[in-house]
Amino acid sequence: MSQYNPPLDDLRFALRTHANIDEVLALPTANGVDLDTVDAILDEASKFASANWSECNRTGDINGARLDNGTVHSDPSFAQAYKDFCEAGWNSLLQPEEFGGQALPSTISAACDEMWYGGNLSLSLLPMLTGGASAAINAHASDAIKQKFLPNMTSGVWSGTMNLTEPQAGTDLSKVASKAVPNGDDTYAVSGQKIFITWGEHELAENIIHLVLARLPDAAPGVKGISLFVVPKYWVNDDGSLGERNKLQCVAIEHKMGIHGSPTCVMQFEGARGYLVGEAGKGLNYMFTMMNHARLCVGIEGHAVAERAFQHALAYTKERVQSKPIDGSSADAVTIIHHPDIRRMLLTQKATLEAQRAMFLMTASMLDKAHSHPNPEEAQKAQALVDFMIPIVKASCTENGTTLTNMALQCFGGMGFVEETGAAQFVRDVRITAIYEGTNGVQALDLIGRKTASNGGQSAGMVLQMAKDTNEQLRKIVPEMAKKLDRAIDLAQQTVQYVVQSFNDKKPELAATGSLPYLMQMAVTIGAVMSAKSYVAATEALKDLDNAVFSESFYRNKLATVQVYFDYVLPQVESYAIQVLSGAQSILNIDVERI
Amino acid sequence: MSQYNPPLDDLRFALRTHANIDEVLALPTANGVDLDTVDAILDEASKFASANWSECNRTGDINGARLDNGTVHSDPSFAQAYKDFCEAGWNSLLQPEEFGGQALPSTISAACDEMWYGGNLSLSLLPMLTGGASAAINAHASDAIKQKFLPNMTSGVWSGTMNLTEPQAGTDLSKVASKAVPNGDDTYAVSGQKIFITWGEHELAENIIHLVLARLPDAAPGVKGISLFVVPKYWVNDDGSLGERNKLQCVAIEHKMGIHGSPTCVMQFEGARGYLVGEAGKGLNYMFTMMNHARLCVGIEGHAVAERAFQHALAYTKERVQSKPIDGSSADAVTIIHHPDIRRMLLTQKATLEAQRAMFLMTASMLDKAHSHPNPEEAQKAQALVDFMIPIVKASCTENGTTLTNMALQCFGGMGFVEETGAAQFVRDVRITAIYEGTNGVQALDLIGRKTASNGGQSAGMVLQMAKDTNEQLRKIVPEMAKKLDRAIDLAQQTVQYVVQSFNDKKPELAATGSLPYLMQMAVTIGAVMSAKSYVAATEALKDLDNAVFSESFYRNKLATVQVYFDYVLPQVESYAIQVLSGAQSILNIDVERI
Repeated sequence: MSQYNPPLDDLRFALRTHANIDEVLALPTANGVDLDTVDAILDEASKFASANWSECNRTGDINGARLDNGTVHSDPSFAQAYKDFCEAGWNSLLQPEEFGGQALPSTISAACDEMWYGGNLSLSLLPMLTGGASAAINAHASDAIKQKFLPNMTSGVWSGTMNLTEPQAGTDLSKVASKAVPNGDDTYAVSGQKIFITWGEHELAENIIHLVLARLPDAAPGVKGISLFVVPKYWVNDDGSLGERNKLQCVAIEHKMGIHGSPTCVMQFEGARGYLVGEAGKGLNYMFTMMNHARLCVGIEGHAVAERAFQHALAYTKERVQSKPIDGSSADAVTIIHHPDIRRMLLTQKATLEAQRAMFLMTASMLDKAHSHPNPEEAQKAQALVDFMIPIVKASCTENGTTLTNMALQCFGGMGFVEETGAAQFVRDVRITAIYEGTNGVQALDLIGRKTASNGGQSAGMVLQMAKDTNEQLRKIVPEMAKKLDRAIDLAQQTVQYVVQSFNDKKPELAATGSLPYLMQMAVTIGAVMSAKSYVAATEALKDLDNAVFSESFYRNKLATVQVYFDYVLPQVESYAIQVLSGAQSILNIDVERI
Repeated sequence: MSQYNPPLDDLRFALRTHANIDEVLALPTANGVDLDTVDAILDEASKFASANWSECNRTGDINGARLDNGTVHSDPSFAQAYKDFCEAGWNSLLQPEEFGGQALPSTISAACDEMWYGGNLSLSLLPMLTGGASAAINAHASDAIKQKFLPNMTSGVWSGTMNLTEPQAGTDLSKVASKAVPNGDDTYAVSGQKIFITWGEHELAENIIHLVLARLPDAAPGVKGISLFVVPKYWVNDDGSLGERNKLQCVAIEHKMGIHGSPTCVMQFEGARGYLVGEAGKGLNYMFTMMNHARLCVGIEGHAVAERAFQHALAYTKERVQSKPIDGSSADAVTIIHHPDIRRMLLTQKATLEAQRAMFLMTASMLDKAHSHPNPEEAQKAQALVDFMIPIVKASCTENGTTLTNMALQCFGGMGFVEETGAAQFVRDVRITAIYEGTNGVQALDLIGRKTASNGGQSAGMVLQMAKDTNEQLRKIVPEMAKKLDRAIDLAQQTVQYVVQSFNDKKPELAATGSLPYLMQMAVTIGAVMSAKSYVAATEALKDLDNAVFSESFYRNKLATVQVYFDYVLPQVESYAIQVLSGAQSILNIDVERI
């Protein structure tokens, strides 16, 4: 089994260097938490994530979730791990104090999220979904509903779900067909079938609070007719006690490629009693307000599983002895980490992961600023940055999730293909992250349209200005690296221009054809900016080690890893840019019926 | 379940355009087979591959192979499919007529291989291994051994295996520790444990003929002390009847990420009786003579599974309706093949697959020429080309195997992650092809060393000269495409030079660090040459459709697909070349103990 060691120092470094943690802690919503407290929280999270939370990751894969007569059985170790998680307060980091939560900034929660997802993705989805459902209720429901549901959802005694997808309504939620009929009191009878409901049914919590998209009888067609309902598994009486079993059930669970420990349910609602959340017809809007945070989380998932796969591969390559080194430095076989191709794979993983970590923590810090910066102009700027970054973080970290976990598996040779080794599970588990919460194709469309073209490339320009500023600092230290970043920035300016122009010309399909390459090009470029920032910070720290937070070898490692990023990861922008700019005609002109 | 339609027309086109099938059929070893016969063989193979052979692909995955008290049980449908395969003569395409085979050229066999592997990879490994073992016996064993084993291995009544790997001897076979002690007659007692033995034990054939690497008591250390033995599961009496059960057994089978239908066995030999093949100490050499063909086969496996995954995705995207098109061409939701990003994924798969098919069939035709061209100079040239191409075909088609099957899965959205859809199986199955028969890292090392540097880049130069010749033909038709290929050829010349120089400077580790990017760069470039050839041939055919072999729409499709290759696949060479030329220092200098 693979031991999981959360990358504590790397998280701390990124919080300081890329997330401007001091500024985050100065926000009014930071609740007076100081940096020492943050470090202590991360310490405890790391201990927790590396203990039983990650230990049942493998058994969760092996045992999977089983549906038996309406009851879903999870891996036997999951219940205790989840109970410990809730009792330690990890379920309530983001929730309002009013309902028993700790109301911490998203930045701190995001750092912890890497540890939960790296430790046990399947089990982490349970509190992740509860958090999303709680946030939706808190933002849009009446006080009575909040009081009824949020305290127990904050403690984790109850869990939450998101019931959006139906067989005919996946990416296109305008096709949602579930119905909600007024009961004559303040409740509604909700009916319909929902699919792909993560942790839709299980025995780990005492109640499950479903958020369900459905239509009222007189609802308009399309998205404007969709409303949001709270539908609990067990009815909750006004005194808070649990009442009758509601008319809903899990009728099937999916047999999936990965995240076997997480039950993916087909939920059948047959006149289940629920409350309307907020106003009728605003269900989809309410969901969209949760979207940035949910997509950030999924990006972190893709990243976190790849980090753990990397650690697993690293440990193996330091142990496994095979073949003499090609440089003639030893007459005997050596540990395989000494072979250049293995080392290329390991360091490509490491360099990408460090850039990703910086990127998602930077984005989380912007979420916090957007949410509560006292200066509205700063808050607005942060929001624009968040909006631009979210599809990039979600899609690039999850595309890389598959690439990097496969690289990690390859380091094991034949053993990688054997399930007991554990490397294959990471490849299988991470695959869903490129799909759910909006496929990566949907993210890429969002990036070219709403996030790039709709503001004439202004958000992209803001990001590229940040890139230039950072690059000027890098230029003073290593001009040859700055030249490489110059080139990447130049290419990014060209493709942003192309995307904006294609929308201006009313030919969005041109940009859409290269939308994923465009997204990946932006991700790799921004990753280089993050790496450059690390390089500058490490260089500074090495000049004054007495006052540095980390060790000399930590900073030297950072310099080396950033070099690898510039040599082996950054060059990808060349290919992506050509793909974006290729004109799209070869793909658009083909007669699809004849393929 | 996915229907498999072998790409018959594409295979025929590639045989004519890239494999110069007329020249292959003119070789003395072609046995007088004509083009009509080839077409008829492909027709029959296609019918067979799309029937019960491919129909049990999914049940093989679900049921897997099970070990029960030394007996391995396969999917119940496999036995009949294998029996039908053998009875139709598919097991003996390459085998000598003397033993009941059909002695067809490798080129024809390779075209059929795509269909077997695409239809059912797990089951195909059984005849594939038998073929390899038969070829080794035929090339190196005594007449008595050949007479004893080859007739039944040719008919498929008996199967064959390759027992090479041991826990401490994977990539580095010099560490093989299994022993063989002379019995005093003409037999030996073989002892040791072998792992990763594909179809090492099963009930589909009446006997299993194991080829085993082991050491004689007085053997030299290292590779020179390794000999090859034939060790049958049941002893074969001189009259051909089966005798006693030999002292060998399957003690475990691996639980793998994919190819569940193929039992991967741990074989225990405990004084099992066997014959020495050829001379003592030459075991590894004998294995190496089989290597080119085996590695070609594995490349075709990676390709074939991706082709089937593509077909599966194509069918779904033509059926699934979701979301309005971005170009405003419809007010209603459309089939998702109309969305540009889906179309980009589909056409990237198709363009890559067509280039790969051309590449492996060209390579197979060179194998035939190398083997039996009457002009020794031509034969030698063909051999040099084979040697250069084999690691490229093996590694690039299997790296792309993972990339392309994942793209196919992505086309399904959430359904792709559900095992019943079948897309996930292709992702899981194909993953092994990048690992076995020499990991792709080993292929890349082979390419930079023995295949590039050791002849001063001469083989690479020959390939690049072919590229230039083809490009001159393309230039007459579409100069702007030829310019793109010029650029790729120029980059290839730079990296070949770099690789040769690094070996000349006694710094092979520099080339080794970028060896896989170098291999992929070569593959993408050669793929572009193959695509250019297709473009030229299709253009010619369109001028004289009355005398053309295929339909107008077939040729127009070829032109369009090649365009996609040049716009979306070929640009990858830019990134690869920079990676190769980056200098390797960032990766080599890092202190591995501190990673």
